[in-house]
Amino acid sequence: MHSWLLPENIEDILPPQAWRLEQARRTALDLFASHGYQLIQPPLIQFLESLLTGTGRDMRLITFSLVDQLSGRPLGVRADITPQAARIDAHLLNRQGATRLCYAGSVLHTRPASADESREPFQVGAELFGHAGLEADLEIQRLMLELLARLGLSGVLLALGHVGIFRALARRAQLDEEREADLFQALQMKDVPTLRELTVGLPQEIRTALEVLPNLYGPRAILEEAVRRLPPYPEIGAALDALQTLADALQEQGTELHFDLAELRGYHYHSGVVFAAYVRQCPRAVAQGGRYDGAGKVFGRARSATGFSMDLRGLLPLLPATQPRGAILAPWGGDTALKARIEELRAAGEVVVVELPGQEAFRAESGCDRQLVPGEGGWQVVALRREA
Amino acid sequence: MHSWLLPENIEDILPPQAWRLEQARRTALDLFASHGYQLIQPPLIQFLESLLTGTGRDMRLITFSLVDQLSGRPLGVRADITPQAARIDAHLLNRQGATRLCYAGSVLHTRPASADESREPFQVGAELFGHAGLEADLEIQRLMLELLARLGLSGVLLALGHVGIFRALARRAQLDEEREADLFQALQMKDVPTLRELTVGLPQEIRTALEVLPNLYGPRAILEEAVRRLPPYPEIGAALDALQTLADALQEQGTELHFDLAELRGYHYHSGVVFAAYVRQCPRAVAQGGRYDGAGKVFGRARSATGFSMDLRGLLPLLPATQPRGAILAPWGGDTALKARIEELRAAGEVVVVELPGQEAFRAESGCDRQLVPGEGGWQVVALRREA
Repeated sequence: MHSWLLPENIEDILPPQAWRLEQARRTALDLFASHGYQLIQPPLIQFLESLLTGTGRDMRLITFSLVDQLSGRPLGVRADITPQAARIDAHLLNRQGATRLCYAGSVLHTRPASADESREPFQVGAELFGHAGLEADLEIQRLMLELLARLGLSGVLLALGHVGIFRALARRAQLDEEREADLFQALQMKDVPTLRELTVGLPQEIRTALEVLPNLYGPRAILEEAVRRLPPYPEIGAALDALQTLADALQEQGTELHFDLAELRGYHYHSGVVFAAYVRQCPRAVAQGGRYDGAGKVFGRARSATGFSMDLRGLLPLLPATQPRGAILAPWGGDTALKARIEELRAAGEVVVVELPGQEAFRAESGCDRQLVPGEGGWQVVALRREA
Repeated sequence: MHSWLLPENIEDILPPQAWRLEQARRTALDLFASHGYQLIQPPLIQFLESLLTGTGRDMRLITFSLVDQLSGRPLGVRADITPQAARIDAHLLNRQGATRLCYAGSVLHTRPASADESREPFQVGAELFGHAGLEADLEIQRLMLELLARLGLSGVLLALGHVGIFRALARRAQLDEEREADLFQALQMKDVPTLRELTVGLPQEIRTALEVLPNLYGPRAILEEAVRRLPPYPEIGAALDALQTLADALQEQGTELHFDLAELRGYHYHSGVVFAAYVRQCPRAVAQGGRYDGAGKVFGRARSATGFSMDLRGLLPLLPATQPRGAILAPWGGDTALKARIEELRAAGEVVVVELPGQEAFRAESGCDRQLVPGEGGWQVVALRREA
C-alpha cells in the first residue's frame, strides 16, 4: 500500500481550491456576523451519547466512534454541528431571548451521502434560537439566500415544505413508531405502491391524504390544491397558512419558489417549516434547513429553533471561477529600500515571493507573473523574465 | 451523566472568543499568503499507518484511531498537520523548486500535552520545501516573528538550537537506538546524573561533550563557549556556524535571542536548526519549528524542508484584549428606506440585529448599544433605550 493513499471519499484540498474555500468561509462568517450571529467553535469530539441524543438521533449510522483514553468512555466525531449549537444555546449561554449563533468547521461521516460526496463536509451554518414565529424562519431563509448570492450562485430555487402535515396525519392515525417510519420512508421516495400497502386499514380520510401527499409538489398553486385535497385539520391549516405567509414575503423579493409537502428531510429533527436551496448545475440541495423546536431539551432547556447549513466543500465546483491573482518575484537580500518596497506591495494586497538563492531555474513553477527590478527611481514592478 | 458534559481537556470556544480566534486565523493566513505560501486543507483522517510514518514517528501515542467502515482498515485522526504538508509537497504537487505551503485547522490528541492544554489544538503553520539553505530557515523564522507581532504579542524571545550537534556525537559514538533514545531523554530533561551513567564506556571526548551539552544554553556568547568545549568535528562546526549566521541576521532586526544546544524537541522529526518562540506570560513555547529534511521520503520524494507551527487556541488567553464592537438594534419589518439603511450600515462593517416581534424584554441580552429610530432626515442611529 502506498503511504500517500487516502481513504475513499477523503481528499486533500489543494491550492488554489483551498483559498477559494477560505474566501467562501469568510464571506459566510462576515455575512452572519453583520446580522448579529455570534461565532461558536464547538469541539470535533464529544461523548458519543451526547452526539446521538436530541437533534442528533438520526446520526448513529454516520458517526465515527473512538475511545477516550482518559475516561475509557466512547467518544464520537461530530457528523453535524447544528446539535452542538443547540447544546451551547440550551446549556451554556442560557439566554432568555432570541440567540443567534453561527459556525464553520469540518464534520466527518462514516459513509458518504452519495458516491461522489466527501466524508468530510465543510459545514457552515447559522441558527436562531428562542423565537417560535415565522419571522425567525424568514430571517434564516433570507440569510441563506443572501449567502448564496454573495457566493456568486444564481438561479437559486427555494423549495419549501412543512413536516407538520405528515406529523398531524401520523398522530391522528395513531401509528406505531415502526409503521410511521415505514410510511415516512415511502413518502420520501414518493413510492406510491408501498404507500398504498402501508395505509391499508387506516381511516379513509387519512389514507387518502397520505396517498395524495406525494403529488402535492410544484409551484405556489399547490398550496391551494392542498387546502382542497387534505382533511381540514387545524394543524394542517396552520402549516399551509405558514407556507402562504412565507411565500408572500419571499416572492416580494423575487425568489423562485417550489413547494413539496412530502419533503420530510430530517423528520425526527425538524418540527415545522423545512427548506432547501437548489441550483441548476447540481441535483443535490446546496443548502438546507428548517425549524427544530424542542432541540436543546436533552441539554436542559427546550427552545424554539430554526437554522440552515451548507457544505462549502461540496459547493466548490459550483462557485464561479476567479482570476488567479498572480505574484511578484523579489530578489533575496538587498537593501532597506527593497525591503520597504516589498512591505508596501504586500500591505497593498500583493503576493511577493522572495527568490531564494539557487531557485532561478524554477521560476516557471513559482506562480509569479511580475518581478521587482532596480530602476532609476527605485525598485520597479515589471513583467517576469523567465531566465535570471 | 449529563448530556452536555464534555470530555476532559475538550472545550467549546464561545462568543466572543471564537471570533478572536477567527481574526487570529485570518491574520495568519493573510500574512502567509502575502509571502507566497499557498493554502492547503488536508483531511482530518488518513489511514493510520500513513499518519505514523516519516515525520510522524513520534505520533503513535497521541493519535486517535478509528475504523474505516468502507475498507475495514484502521484510520487515524491527524495529530499534526506538518506531515500532511510534507505528503502533499512530495506526492501531489511534485514541484522541483521551493514550495511554500500553509494551513490552519484542528488536530486531535489522545492525551493533552499538559494538564491545562486542550486535546484539540488549533494548528496554523507555514512550511517551506525544496530549499536546504539557511535563507529558508531565516525566512520561516522571520515569518513566525512577524505573525507574533501582528497578533499583538510583544517581548518575544526566540530560542535556537541545532539537532546536528547531538546527532554528530551519537553517530560517532555508534550508539544503538535504545541508548541514543535514553540519552536524548536525559538531555531533554537536563538530567546530568543519568547522563553520566549513560555515557559510561563512551570515548572520553564524546562523554565530556554529552555532559557539557546541558550547560550550553544562554545568550549568544554560549556559541563561542561551545566552540571551545565541544570536540572539533566538522558537523559540529557547521551547526555552530549556522547558528552564528542566523544570529547575525536576526540580531540585525532586534530579535531577543536565546540558544540551547541540548534542545532537541522533535528530534526524530528534525534534522537541523530548531527554534521556539516564548513570551513572558507563558511558560510554554507559543510557536515552534525547525528543519526536517528528508520528510516526504516515505511519500516518494525526499525534500529539504523547514517550517513552523503554533496552536492559536492555546494562544487565545495571551492575545491583547479587543474592544467589543457593539451592535445596532433595528425594528422588524419597516419600509424600504429602513432596509436600505440596514444594508448600508452592515456594508460599512456594523452589526445590525433585527428585533424579532416579542423580543423587547430581552434587549439587555442582545449585545446592542445603539438602535435605529425614524427621524426627520430618515433612519437615525441613536443610543439604545433598554425599554421598547
